[in-house]
Amino acid sequence: MPAFSRFTPLISALPATVPFVGPEAIERNRGLIVKARIGANENGFGPAPSAIEAMCAAAGETWKYADPENFDLKQALAAHLGCKAENIAVGEGIDSLLGLIVRLVIDPGLPVVTSFGAYPTFNFHVAGHGGRLVTVPYVDDRENLDGLLEAVRRENAPLIYFANPDNPMGSWWDADSIVAFAEALPETCLMILDEAYCETGPADAMPAISALIGRPNVIRTRTFSKAYGMAGSRVGYAITTPGTAQAFDKIRNHFGMNRIGVAAALAALKDQAYLSDVIGRIKASRDRIAGIAAANGLKPLPSATNFVAIDCGRDGAYARSIVDGLMEHGVFIRMPGVAPLNRCIRVSVGPESDMALLEEALPKVLKGF
Amino acid sequence: MPAFSRFTPLISALPATVPFVGPEAIERNRGLIVKARIGANENGFGPAPSAIEAMCAAAGETWKYADPENFDLKQALAAHLGCKAENIAVGEGIDSLLGLIVRLVIDPGLPVVTSFGAYPTFNFHVAGHGGRLVTVPYVDDRENLDGLLEAVRRENAPLIYFANPDNPMGSWWDADSIVAFAEALPETCLMILDEAYCETGPADAMPAISALIGRPNVIRTRTFSKAYGMAGSRVGYAITTPGTAQAFDKIRNHFGMNRIGVAAALAALKDQAYLSDVIGRIKASRDRIAGIAAANGLKPLPSATNFVAIDCGRDGAYARSIVDGLMEHGVFIRMPGVAPLNRCIRVSVGPESDMALLEEALPKVLKGF
Repeated sequence: MPAFSRFTPLISALPATVPFVGPEAIERNRGLIVKARIGANENGFGPAPSAIEAMCAAAGETWKYADPENFDLKQALAAHLGCKAENIAVGEGIDSLLGLIVRLVIDPGLPVVTSFGAYPTFNFHVAGHGGRLVTVPYVDDRENLDGLLEAVRRENAPLIYFANPDNPMGSWWDADSIVAFAEALPETCLMILDEAYCETGPADAMPAISALIGRPNVIRTRTFSKAYGMAGSRVGYAITTPGTAQAFDKIRNHFGMNRIGVAAALAALKDQAYLSDVIGRIKASRDRIAGIAAANGLKPLPSATNFVAIDCGRDGAYARSIVDGLMEHGVFIRMPGVAPLNRCIRVSVGPESDMALLEEALPKVLKGF
Repeated sequence: MPAFSRFTPLISALPATVPFVGPEAIERNRGLIVKARIGANENGFGPAPSAIEAMCAAAGETWKYADPENFDLKQALAAHLGCKAENIAVGEGIDSLLGLIVRLVIDPGLPVVTSFGAYPTFNFHVAGHGGRLVTVPYVDDRENLDGLLEAVRRENAPLIYFANPDNPMGSWWDADSIVAFAEALPETCLMILDEAYCETGPADAMPAISALIGRPNVIRTRTFSKAYGMAGSRVGYAITTPGTAQAFDKIRNHFGMNRIGVAAALAALKDQAYLSDVIGRIKASRDRIAGIAAANGLKPLPSATNFVAIDCGRDGAYARSIVDGLMEHGVFIRMPGVAPLNRCIRVSVGPESDMALLEEALPKVLKGF
């Protein structure tokens, strides 16, 4: 396949790998149908009815670009969080914001610290900008705060990625530890504190907004994709100092937001009653997943997210065979990519119909080995 | 405002300018209300009812990410265009694709050829990647093909941006000239042929898809934002060789597409009857705008787009005063950014209610001088 002959050296050297294969591609490639879509940490309980209503109401207005300043959404988020609109940058999901942050900080060859086995899409962006990943192993299925700090200092790294609660393990640190870590970081290192799953964790796992809002080297990223149930809307946001937030304006796609997505986010944010209800269902679904795992002799790990990592007690090949086997039954799940995390499978929450499919399929798959 | 201290040198040197100020910001900053939104080359006739229906139908599914491979949309586009799905890359509007293309090709200091006064968002992306803009003046309000080719050769430029039909002037070249230009380009220069306005131009202005599909150094960009009336959906696509199309996969935000936007694009593409109808209305609206201009002693330029550039016969300050004056009456329009193009104002098509507001306001504004 002939391609243009003069891409940059960095681009030419990049593989055409993708961070995640979607369930649609699995269906196409394997000739299977996904019946229980519980693999991508989506939220099968769906968006608030009020948000759906807002989407339909906005559909006729789709001929207009969204406000490039995202004024209303930033105001609403600021009021909700107790900060100023200037503290917030809005983007097309956290994935997009991660790409921008890497671009803001990383020139080719610069070191970027992350945990070994953490978010592949972040690593994809680092590779795409020529950064050099410096990884620190998880300890007891949690990101290793001391080890990460040591790596930042040793490498004089300008960027670190840290998720709390964690994906893919579902584990978390308490707020005090996070704040202490941020305070110990050199101010020449930008910390991405990815809080995609903040709404579903224990209250004491989330630092107060005020605890970190004054640090120009901390960017907290959040999203409407998880607890709010709107992954397809692509609305994420970053919380940081006004000065750091403004840097996004230098390079972001100013007219990149989907108008209906913004309308939906505004409605969803208003509907905290629905969010509370869904969080309850997410927690119940976590318990349901854990129960199914335990009933099959597998070990569910504690989770602060909308998924449960399940220790299958053997190696990555074994876990992979469970993932593939479940898909034969129409149950789409995923698993961590590297050892020792990949002894686990990862099951996202979903409605009872999905859980019942998992409950039915899992013993059949395990019996097959 | 303290910002992180260690952004890349390139980022640190960038201004926080934005390519366009949105009408919402004008409303907020000037305390005015936009009554006729005819400045951003949106399409006030709106999306097809069938597309609106598809958006509402997809709203409840927003908990799912869109298919990262955009399989269905690429298939549908390929069938529509008469090419293969592998010839297509999908992105969050042409703006996003332009940013990716610049990133694929431009390292700091490399020259990028474009017309002086052409699309500011492209220039924004070039600046954002440290490219050096090499501009060629318009001739008779058209992009200067000979001059652009000469500039590419002189500079050994790896990238050129060319829009046909043109924004902001609405002018166009015939297909044969475009194809001859592409064939004359060194294969070490990637041509962005931006066809955002392809649906509303004369048939003989658009090269056949087959005419350029074999050239790895030509990427044609198209969108659902203009004739399809879905600017807020952020669905654009690129047409090129499979090899060049695949390069996007190395760096694009794989989960960046809005699920409702994709559903809407699929529906809109199917509804060619509505598109034909809207194109008729767009052409009638162009005539209406031209008539209003002429009735006020201004000179409308021929247009192949969904807007009309109107020569106001004096300098940029004069045109600016008309733009600002119209806004006092709630009529939002824009104007080109540099001389000599900025002797013009630029009015987007819209329904008759918008045209009536323009017709009423323009003479009042002109009388005020």
